[in-house]
Amino acid sequence: MTHSVIQPLPPIKTALEDLADALKSDMAQVNALIMARMTSDIPLIPQLAGYLIASGGKRIRPLMTLASTRLFDAATPRPYLLAAAVEFIHTATLLHDDVVDESDLRRGKPSANIVFGNQSSVLVGDFLFSRAFELMVEDGSLEVLRILSRASAVIAEGEVLQLSIQNKLETTLDQYIDVIGAKTAALFAAATEIGPVIAGQPPEICKALKDYGYNLGMAFQIADDILDYQADEHQLGKAVGDDFKEGKMTAPVIFALQEASQDDQNFWKRTFVEGDFNENDLVHAQTIITRTKSDKKTRDMAHFYVQKALSALAPLPPSAEKSRLEALADFATSRNS
Amino acid sequence: MTHSVIQPLPPIKTALEDLADALKSDMAQVNALIMARMTSDIPLIPQLAGYLIASGGKRIRPLMTLASTRLFDAATPRPYLLAAAVEFIHTATLLHDDVVDESDLRRGKPSANIVFGNQSSVLVGDFLFSRAFELMVEDGSLEVLRILSRASAVIAEGEVLQLSIQNKLETTLDQYIDVIGAKTAALFAAATEIGPVIAGQPPEICKALKDYGYNLGMAFQIADDILDYQADEHQLGKAVGDDFKEGKMTAPVIFALQEASQDDQNFWKRTFVEGDFNENDLVHAQTIITRTKSDKKTRDMAHFYVQKALSALAPLPPSAEKSRLEALADFATSRNS
Repeated sequence: MTHSVIQPLPPIKTALEDLADALKSDMAQVNALIMARMTSDIPLIPQLAGYLIASGGKRIRPLMTLASTRLFDAATPRPYLLAAAVEFIHTATLLHDDVVDESDLRRGKPSANIVFGNQSSVLVGDFLFSRAFELMVEDGSLEVLRILSRASAVIAEGEVLQLSIQNKLETTLDQYIDVIGAKTAALFAAATEIGPVIAGQPPEICKALKDYGYNLGMAFQIADDILDYQADEHQLGKAVGDDFKEGKMTAPVIFALQEASQDDQNFWKRTFVEGDFNENDLVHAQTIITRTKSDKKTRDMAHFYVQKALSALAPLPPSAEKSRLEALADFATSRNS
Repeated sequence: MTHSVIQPLPPIKTALEDLADALKSDMAQVNALIMARMTSDIPLIPQLAGYLIASGGKRIRPLMTLASTRLFDAATPRPYLLAAAVEFIHTATLLHDDVVDESDLRRGKPSANIVFGNQSSVLVGDFLFSRAFELMVEDGSLEVLRILSRASAVIAEGEVLQLSIQNKLETTLDQYIDVIGAKTAALFAAATEIGPVIAGQPPEICKALKDYGYNLGMAFQIADDILDYQADEHQLGKAVGDDFKEGKMTAPVIFALQEASQDDQNFWKRTFVEGDFNENDLVHAQTIITRTKSDKKTRDMAHFYVQKALSALAPLPPSAEKSRLEALADFATSRNS
């Protein structure tokens, strides 16, 4: 008996990479559509839109639309136009968000508002948003138009609500849940609901996928909000501590405030309310969050939504496609970028 | 025979007031819908949207939609939802425009971006835009959704194009026509095309109304651009000279540059290109525009589009409704606010 040569382990794929691999040829079609439909006679539009779109991003929302269609009859036409529309809506909201938040880093590069200016970012966001509706009209489903126009209105409401609780230490966990439910989970829910809708599935199945998407979106956003205090900046692709500098009332801070000593309270008041930041404040915020176990509580909250996402899938029969969606739910809280 | 008592003349109504009177009860329905559908659980949204919407405005675009429906069978349902959607799209673009242009006066009041901030103006614009599409979905015509999603994309293209020629003295009249065709005339065209479309009229009639709307929009915008150098500020409801301060390349300036002396060229270069403004520069710009007859040329250009608008109506049989649309075309260039 000889010692076997140690084989290097294959790199571990994340559930998201696995899903993207399974939908590779479909996503290639969607990506081609995205590039083709962001064109315009006005060169600045594809330049600016392409700057953000070509910079990567997880393309998780169009993947959700494709994956939720794949669960059903293989004869259902692939919703390429709709997956592209969903990504355009998402891209438009990112462009406007970065203007609103005065961000300077997105996906590891200077954000579009820094490179092209706020004015162009607002207008190209408007263009992509309109183009998304043109794609939906081309697809021709009024039900999908209803779902995505509603989601778009809810996203805007969520962003306005977020703005109105910014720097307000009295923000409750319920208000935070309302904000992320609207600004993030609504589009995830819409993206996954589209699949069963165009596959002609009954209402309870459409509802199941909508609920899955909603809860997955909640888990993703809560995980994002903890990563903003804990991630490696290079892996995250955006500046760690952005939420802190902007005074965004996210779960880690809301939990930390529930356990705040007088010193802690003074610290959050000086930074979040008075906007007076010192060099070591982010590190101090991270220390408070760890000491008060607010990171743990936030992760538990994310896991709660992962469980809800998994439960929502229960009515579906077992399949490889269903397993990938389940794995994706687990990935939502285990990722580090 | 006694001398008759001199009766005071009734105030002369403008063609727009006359049209609004004829459509009074329809517009009341549209206004009620506008107020009802800008509501949201987030109080800031109706506050900000209502600030702009309640401040008046001519409501000319929804009036066009109502008027273009009235031309046909009285049994055609009134397109209240669509008229409200058109006004929401217009309001959304105003909110975003004022952010992009850094305006501080709109309809005689401080603009929404000054009162509520740029961030809220961007997001509430997004909300109204989404809500417009929800209203169209509720109406249920895919053809109208196609027309208005296309118009919205074109508007954004026009705004981006306008931004890219700002401060560029080499801008041609053709580029200016492209800009105003996209940013203004496209929505006028869409608003009037909706009428015959929902009344089930043949393509040539839909095209006639679309052309009428387009050319009316061109005439309105060109008249606006001359008013920006010549109007009474109180009547106009926005600051005279805004285009000048922003270095917007509009017809009066493009014509003036064609006849520019060396002194004139130096003046436009210092102000528009270098952004160096002195106290009397607006008056000097007005003087140059008058001396080079650029005001006259601009008015002639507006009249050219009025004629095209009137010609477009030729295929329609005579009616009181048609006469009102003809009168409105003449009003486009005779108004002083």
